[in-house]
Amino acid sequence: MNNPRRQNLISVYRDGLLNDVVPFWLRHAADQEHGGIMTAVNQDGSRLDTDKGVWQQGRFAWLMGKLYNQVEAREEWLTQAKRTVEFIERHCFDPEDGRMWFHVTREGAPIRKRRYAYSESFAAIAFGEYAKATGDDYYAERARELFLQFINHNLNPRGVTPKFTDVRPTRGIGFPMIAMNTAQELRESIDLPEAHEWIDRSVDAIRDFHVKDEIECVMETVGVGGEILDHFDGRTLNPGHAIEAAWFIMQEGAYRDDDSLIQLGCKMLDWMWRRGWDQQYGGLLYFVDLRGLPVQDYWHDMKFWWPQNETIIATLMAYHLTGDEKYAAWNQQAHDWAYRHFPDHEHGEWFGYLHRDGSVSTSLKGNLWKGPFHLPRMQLICWKLLAAAEAAPQPSAAISNLAD
Amino acid sequence: MNNPRRQNLISVYRDGLLNDVVPFWLRHAADQEHGGIMTAVNQDGSRLDTDKGVWQQGRFAWLMGKLYNQVEAREEWLTQAKRTVEFIERHCFDPEDGRMWFHVTREGAPIRKRRYAYSESFAAIAFGEYAKATGDDYYAERARELFLQFINHNLNPRGVTPKFTDVRPTRGIGFPMIAMNTAQELRESIDLPEAHEWIDRSVDAIRDFHVKDEIECVMETVGVGGEILDHFDGRTLNPGHAIEAAWFIMQEGAYRDDDSLIQLGCKMLDWMWRRGWDQQYGGLLYFVDLRGLPVQDYWHDMKFWWPQNETIIATLMAYHLTGDEKYAAWNQQAHDWAYRHFPDHEHGEWFGYLHRDGSVSTSLKGNLWKGPFHLPRMQLICWKLLAAAEAAPQPSAAISNLAD
Repeated sequence: MNNPRRQNLISVYRDGLLNDVVPFWLRHAADQEHGGIMTAVNQDGSRLDTDKGVWQQGRFAWLMGKLYNQVEAREEWLTQAKRTVEFIERHCFDPEDGRMWFHVTREGAPIRKRRYAYSESFAAIAFGEYAKATGDDYYAERARELFLQFINHNLNPRGVTPKFTDVRPTRGIGFPMIAMNTAQELRESIDLPEAHEWIDRSVDAIRDFHVKDEIECVMETVGVGGEILDHFDGRTLNPGHAIEAAWFIMQEGAYRDDDSLIQLGCKMLDWMWRRGWDQQYGGLLYFVDLRGLPVQDYWHDMKFWWPQNETIIATLMAYHLTGDEKYAAWNQQAHDWAYRHFPDHEHGEWFGYLHRDGSVSTSLKGNLWKGPFHLPRMQLICWKLLAAAEAAPQPSAAISNLAD
Repeated sequence: MNNPRRQNLISVYRDGLLNDVVPFWLRHAADQEHGGIMTAVNQDGSRLDTDKGVWQQGRFAWLMGKLYNQVEAREEWLTQAKRTVEFIERHCFDPEDGRMWFHVTREGAPIRKRRYAYSESFAAIAFGEYAKATGDDYYAERARELFLQFINHNLNPRGVTPKFTDVRPTRGIGFPMIAMNTAQELRESIDLPEAHEWIDRSVDAIRDFHVKDEIECVMETVGVGGEILDHFDGRTLNPGHAIEAAWFIMQEGAYRDDDSLIQLGCKMLDWMWRRGWDQQYGGLLYFVDLRGLPVQDYWHDMKFWWPQNETIIATLMAYHLTGDEKYAAWNQQAHDWAYRHFPDHEHGEWFGYLHRDGSVSTSLKGNLWKGPFHLPRMQLICWKLLAAAEAAPQPSAAISNLAD
């Protein structure tokens, strides 16, 4: 990557983050009355729904805290983090069992709880950044509690009816990868004592059960012993998810200066780029089948925003860690395709859901699933990565700086 | 509709049913070893998954019994019905609570149960047709038991964790419309004593809560008192579903010789055709928003097979009941678009999932959701309707014949 391209990318990411994406959400979606964020907005930012997704509350508070801690101590960001963290504390827990809701009204009345505990993981990283920004030990302790609650619920779910019987038990990559990234985040923000242990366990689970050398594939769902299940669910691959897990692992390799982790992450990226990149139209496909058969999920060939974000991060990180020009080429391909199709040049931010050919399927900018997270995280990480690489002679030093 | 077109349509539907669709499923999907059907097959009929959807077991046995009862007493059809009904009896009930599974293995080990009880409604109509075909009172009694079990579970769900809290309670059109059609089917097959009562209740529920004259719309989901909920879920319309409910009601109007029901069904069709028909590419859209806003479900603009099937039935029935040429024109539009895009001229049957523009999204012919039901039901009903209309001078007499 030459210097003019690097300079250009830094400004695309930094300016996009600070002058487009963050202002879009603060202007249109932050709830000035009750705290938190109402992510369901249309193309122009007009409101589609006042309901609040609990994942998005945690992610938004995390982003505000992160920007305050990493970019600049702007009062507005800290205020938004505070108001959102307080909304979470006040309204997002079921007093009956202490578990978090998934979906609440604007005022915080509960609509839905789910079987899993990802609300807890996103609240944990939000509380962690807020604790770091304020120095308030109460929130550091809450962040750790929520992390352990997330872990414990996944290992030993109580009070929920399982979705499936125990005839064909499975394990998904979602839990270890989110456990790993949550631990990485909390190591940075509150120096979580359990971080190293859970990162090790998560990497082991991904490597032992999901990474298949013989077929060069990262499996999304396997049997409890890592068996490949020759059914729709077992064969369905989620390349964007696997590539996200890949950069969590590369980042850990850089942090620990452990080449074996960097190689593992790069291998996962290599395989899933080949399986997930759409040779016909470009962009990362949502689902593909292990053997190229049809998948059951009918939106399989759509281009969602977040797999592109994760691919852009992973390819840039792999390039900086290895110097392999292949990754710079993939990064350019992923970046160029995404920036050709997703940004809304009229009202800012990105569209979220494109058809396979890159045409826009829906004009909305947010819903229960899409909010200020994957895109601004990509912008922040890629900006910092490129800026650090500019300053540091050795590639991996750049990543350590990032993860510190 | 002129006579040559009618003759041509009769042969498209009848021959399509008997020489293409039914043979496709019998050849590729019927389980000769364990009974029942494995609907997950690829374009050429090759197997994608051996698992069995319980809805599809009931629907397949219903179709086999229906063909035996209405078309011709072919031993093969009765044998398939018998083997599938026996598979259902043996493997599709949870002995712990008597509720039915949703998804089982080929051999019948349970994989998943759901909160709702549609497996019961489809098993009920299967048992009803089988009782009629064999004269076996045991299955007639089982059909009635399952119908009441379906009703009771919907009114008073026990042993399931609700998906939503009671902060914003809703009612969906799915329960009354399926209750109504199940009762219609069981009235015909086993003379269900409760049929009239449940059809009345279902029509009342649809008319009182879901049919909105002031905005000319059939709502999929409303508040318990029929309030329009200005949130994603409340605004999301499912035109294919509403049009299916419309012909259930028209059919009842013809059966009872009740013009007010025919008018209600036609009104529902009129509104939802206007809201659901894609003016740009043709075909019925999957979801649309009440006010034209984005919907949350990202596959909203795909063209699934079944909404086209239901629209073809509803427009043909409306034409025969009213003589209004508008319905003949809509019927031709719906038929022509569907037959231009869905049939697989190489291996038979229809593709199930097209992009908005009519291009094929996935080559599979079946999965847990798609099996031999909506398409062959359309072929059978439209064939019989056209044939009866040819013989009967009065349009509504044709429909009564059909429902008898």
